[in-house]
Amino acid sequence: MRTIEWDQDQKLLRIIDQRKLPVSLEFITCKSWQDIASAISTMAVRGAPAIGVAAAFGMAMVYPSILINDQKRYKMELKKAADGLIASRPTAVNITWAVAQMVDLAKNLNQSPENIQAALLLKAQQMADSDVEINKWIGLNGANLIENGDTIIHHCNTGSLATVDWGTALGAIRTAHEQGKQVHVLVDETRPRLQGARLTAWELEQLKIPYEIITDNAAGYFLRRGDVQKVMFGADRVAANGDVINKIGSYMLALAAHQNKVPVYSLFPVSTVDINIETGDSVTIEERDSTEVLNLQFDHADIVPKGARARNPAFDITPHEYLSALVTEYGIIEPPYKNKLAGLINQVSR
Amino acid sequence: MRTIEWDQDQKLLRIIDQRKLPVSLEFITCKSWQDIASAISTMAVRGAPAIGVAAAFGMAMVYPSILINDQKRYKMELKKAADGLIASRPTAVNITWAVAQMVDLAKNLNQSPENIQAALLLKAQQMADSDVEINKWIGLNGANLIENGDTIIHHCNTGSLATVDWGTALGAIRTAHEQGKQVHVLVDETRPRLQGARLTAWELEQLKIPYEIITDNAAGYFLRRGDVQKVMFGADRVAANGDVINKIGSYMLALAAHQNKVPVYSLFPVSTVDINIETGDSVTIEERDSTEVLNLQFDHADIVPKGARARNPAFDITPHEYLSALVTEYGIIEPPYKNKLAGLINQVSR
Repeated sequence: MRTIEWDQDQKLLRIIDQRKLPVSLEFITCKSWQDIASAISTMAVRGAPAIGVAAAFGMAMVYPSILINDQKRYKMELKKAADGLIASRPTAVNITWAVAQMVDLAKNLNQSPENIQAALLLKAQQMADSDVEINKWIGLNGANLIENGDTIIHHCNTGSLATVDWGTALGAIRTAHEQGKQVHVLVDETRPRLQGARLTAWELEQLKIPYEIITDNAAGYFLRRGDVQKVMFGADRVAANGDVINKIGSYMLALAAHQNKVPVYSLFPVSTVDINIETGDSVTIEERDSTEVLNLQFDHADIVPKGARARNPAFDITPHEYLSALVTEYGIIEPPYKNKLAGLINQVSR
Repeated sequence: MRTIEWDQDQKLLRIIDQRKLPVSLEFITCKSWQDIASAISTMAVRGAPAIGVAAAFGMAMVYPSILINDQKRYKMELKKAADGLIASRPTAVNITWAVAQMVDLAKNLNQSPENIQAALLLKAQQMADSDVEINKWIGLNGANLIENGDTIIHHCNTGSLATVDWGTALGAIRTAHEQGKQVHVLVDETRPRLQGARLTAWELEQLKIPYEIITDNAAGYFLRRGDVQKVMFGADRVAANGDVINKIGSYMLALAAHQNKVPVYSLFPVSTVDINIETGDSVTIEERDSTEVLNLQFDHADIVPKGARARNPAFDITPHEYLSALVTEYGIIEPPYKNKLAGLINQVSR
């Protein structure tokens, strides 16, 4: 079962509604790029690789109609969809990357809108398949860093749910587990949306990998006691110098690990690297609605006093000096990162 | 209105039930030391100074009856109450400190059980009054560290609710506010029990001090951006070398502040210093029930998958090197702490 699945008969994208987990496994169906943008912005689908692929399908769901049935018109509609999809979550680069690939393909095809749309759909399907393959490679590379008996702190959710299938950081833990290594995961609950407590715990439960949930602010306690051998998380955007923009809390976790000489690894597909930004500090950090903080379970009453306000940055920046290695589908990159990342991007884009 | 108030007519201790805030302001009544121990362990009353005073009243609620109406019998009952009260929360030293004072007083009084009980009650009332006075001094001393225009990250709750009245770290913020200084508080929500989002926000709302709630894991983001001028929290126990044992999350917060050159202050009454322990690492850290993590609002359904387990350390250790100063009712102590703390304790106990 994939997080994102194209239904060719009904011409719709079926997505696991991650807001409903772990209470129930439900699906939503998207029939237009607007449906996709809304699923991304409300975080029904989340995880950098997953939203990249979802956005690609969004582009493939711009259908030529009588009104827009000339190539110029259609490409204008594609541009509108591209802008809308990119705006649905401004920090993760995977949407921009996926949408750019679709726009490039359309630009180079001097064909009827119907043919272009068919080509875009094929491309989106290829990207979904390729994401699974990429994740398996990330998992294999990352598993090489995991030793038998390791206790690993994992932040947010980077499993099957965050990708089309398999996962990045959690994929590496899964691969190590399947290789027969004993691993124990301390699952950061990951406030405010609790992707750790809700989603990562759900995946680990299904995979029968031992875990315990901790509050984000307890990670330092376990790190300082020497209970933890590795820290692993994903990435929403990686700067040219190796700074990692990831789910809020990654920075404090990486810092506490670094201070206690526990290695920190960020695992992601190469498409997460944004070679155009020099350092993490130039990335715009999405600030989400304060109700995510004020109201613990979204659908319950506020737990704060009447009148309370909140700040809710969704990501933070982990400076590259706290990262022991970066892991992609092409292998493990050790510091210094800058030239190696540039070389890798150069090679991949050729 | 005090957090803890003795009702002489009804011979009971009236305590604000902090589990019900901010939704409703309710009181519980305690008629025996067992009631007090239960109020402390369930965190109906919490905050190092508040539970110290509550425990003192607990000792004063051991009443001589026909069965225990000889001095030896009565003192054995006092010993039982002392043990039970100390066990109700093992990490905070204030209970041990308060109970020891009561035991000492009883030991030195060669009088009838009735007279000893009356003396203990008087002593508990004095401790309550003295706590308010001590807190006002901590507030005045701490306010000297706050500058006009400061944004302060505050962890857990250290206000009126954590003491008999006024507060320690939050007391300093309150004093600075009353002195006319503009302050803005970033309130760490403080998982798992949300003392920040629930209690500190409630107090700041009433005091009309501007604040915003943040998740604990977002503190690093604001610190790194340079948005924060001070970090302030209380203490549950302070080691001889100045290490501070405080609510879980204090360590990661202090580390992130230190790394970003933002000063960190711990504010507490001298009774919080445990000169008998050399460093924070020898303190037993209370691990509380995992349901506090698994079930976000205690009385609601779990948010985690069926079968999920959690770890729940209630405190952590902030090494003294991350603390810019310690603040007590006697003034501001700058590093190095060891000799200054020893001198202070020596002077106070004389």
